[in-house]
Amino acid sequence: MTRVPTPRLPTVSDVASAAGVSRQTVSNVLNSPAVVRPDTRGRVEKAIADLGYRPHASARRLRTRKSSTIGIRLDPVQNGISGAVLDRFLHAVTEQADARGYRILLYTAAGPGDEIAQFRRLLDGADVDGFVLTSTSFDDPRTEWLIEAGADFVTFGRPWGIDDLDDPRHRWVDVDGRAGVASATRQLLDGGARRVAFLGWPAESGAGDDRRRGWRDAMTAGSALAPAQLDELDLAVEDSVALAAARVQELLDAGVTVDAVVCASDTLALGASTVLGPATRVVGYDDTPVAAALGFSSVQQPLEEVAAATLGLLLDGDRDGDGDRDGDAGPGPADRHRLLRPTTVWR
Amino acid sequence: MTRVPTPRLPTVSDVASAAGVSRQTVSNVLNSPAVVRPDTRGRVEKAIADLGYRPHASARRLRTRKSSTIGIRLDPVQNGISGAVLDRFLHAVTEQADARGYRILLYTAAGPGDEIAQFRRLLDGADVDGFVLTSTSFDDPRTEWLIEAGADFVTFGRPWGIDDLDDPRHRWVDVDGRAGVASATRQLLDGGARRVAFLGWPAESGAGDDRRRGWRDAMTAGSALAPAQLDELDLAVEDSVALAAARVQELLDAGVTVDAVVCASDTLALGASTVLGPATRVVGYDDTPVAAALGFSSVQQPLEEVAAATLGLLLDGDRDGDGDRDGDAGPGPADRHRLLRPTTVWR
Repeated sequence: MTRVPTPRLPTVSDVASAAGVSRQTVSNVLNSPAVVRPDTRGRVEKAIADLGYRPHASARRLRTRKSSTIGIRLDPVQNGISGAVLDRFLHAVTEQADARGYRILLYTAAGPGDEIAQFRRLLDGADVDGFVLTSTSFDDPRTEWLIEAGADFVTFGRPWGIDDLDDPRHRWVDVDGRAGVASATRQLLDGGARRVAFLGWPAESGAGDDRRRGWRDAMTAGSALAPAQLDELDLAVEDSVALAAARVQELLDAGVTVDAVVCASDTLALGASTVLGPATRVVGYDDTPVAAALGFSSVQQPLEEVAAATLGLLLDGDRDGDGDRDGDAGPGPADRHRLLRPTTVWR
Repeated sequence: MTRVPTPRLPTVSDVASAAGVSRQTVSNVLNSPAVVRPDTRGRVEKAIADLGYRPHASARRLRTRKSSTIGIRLDPVQNGISGAVLDRFLHAVTEQADARGYRILLYTAAGPGDEIAQFRRLLDGADVDGFVLTSTSFDDPRTEWLIEAGADFVTFGRPWGIDDLDDPRHRWVDVDGRAGVASATRQLLDGGARRVAFLGWPAESGAGDDRRRGWRDAMTAGSALAPAQLDELDLAVEDSVALAAARVQELLDAGVTVDAVVCASDTLALGASTVLGPATRVVGYDDTPVAAALGFSSVQQPLEEVAAATLGLLLDGDRDGDGDRDGDAGPGPADRHRLLRPTTVWR
């Protein structure tokens, strides 16, 4: 595509001379066919077909200043089991955007600074109308930059800064991991488990801390364990099958009784399940293909709903931050963010 | 993005009046700055910055008739373990395309007919310069359509029709699954295994039949087993963990001795490994995160190389089908297709 000169494509002028009409008439046939006499229109349409003339999308975009394109970063490939969830989100967004007449443009970035450079490049080129961001972090510099630039965006993942949750300029969709893990823990307690452990990540990851709080909510309310006993069952390792297996083995070696383990990811759940016998229930998070294949339970994010809510906020929602969906009557934070409930798939 | 009228963006005329120059001078500053006097250029550049004028990518594209964009279909989410390989290919292509100044536009399609409708739409809009296709099949109607339309494309996956392998109009990159499986099987035989089984898919899938042939090549050459004994070890099920486990269990129940199993996918390998003891070696295909997590061996496709070769053929290769890389001296099929060797990751 780079070296061979492109053969000249037919233009409106070519169509006009072939049909023996003015360029304005060709333009009318393309844009307001009703104003053109049928026989003239027939001649122009035949010339368009004969010459293979294509009204150029870039020209249309130049008129409308709209690209009908949404930019999404393709995250680096993760070697863990859980990376699949963002790929499934991308699938859902692409399919639903397609159905709404929007396309997805992918870009890559080595880090937040690099991603901001991509924002600038894509916005400068009017290549995209807005962005969908994933993998939000504490004090995310990307969302700050986009707000500053006045760009349209929605994040899958809530802002993790202290006062940002209701920032009207930051529209977001997220899944309530705290509620999901609490519900899974509560169901285990209701089923007769007493000592339910939590295997999560080290503190300071927004999503991980949130899931841990869910476990603690349910255990505090529904188990007879004292805080010190809960601390003993509150485990943290990096997201690795081997580290998870080692940590659970360490607990068992110390003689600690565990009736069930709720995990912050399927990767951790896989590690735990290689050490625990079939009598100890393991619940993962994200319901990846591995959970289904190996038969352990898992908290499932409603990714189709997340995709629908993300596109809804981006394309229909409250864009000027005045608190209401543009064009509708009532104000409301539902026009700026959505926190969706996950469900547990029991196996 | 749909309801609020876009505020009018600054135009070349706005820049021209703010800088007190003609529109042609603004155009010169943008396109041939060397011809403009430095002080005038400074005034125009200041006006561009003050007004936030952005030379529009669509306008550039209209001039060049190039989108610098490659279309790729995002395959439907697969529930198996092995779908991840296409996502990893997409990652590799996106990163490498980005480094070459090309963007990836995603589309979805419910089937070949739907995908052809997408081709037409994207080509009519000049939205893409070409396509990268995955998941090729026997007598693929998509490639026939693209050849007929004169569109640029490269497939990851060889054409599986009988006479199409050397069709100069069909550029392709593929991984030599037959050689990869043969090599893995040979290494198992060299390591002392005698009765190596093959667990693949039912006949008539191009890639699956190819992998099965690799196993048979190696067993015929390197094992002492008679053809009838090989047939007993040649297993076929759909790509499912449960079906794979059941089929291997059936073999064991029939009293058939198996020293090792080479599989057409990690999904099948996962199923086999749940039934077989640690003494029986299992080799999967695609080296997915599951293989690494559970510790079984797997044949690994060189996806970074596949991505590089795909983009090389699409962007630099032989596009007119005359048998040589455009602009270079010697002809050769290497300018039209590449068959890359996989390696086995032993665990």
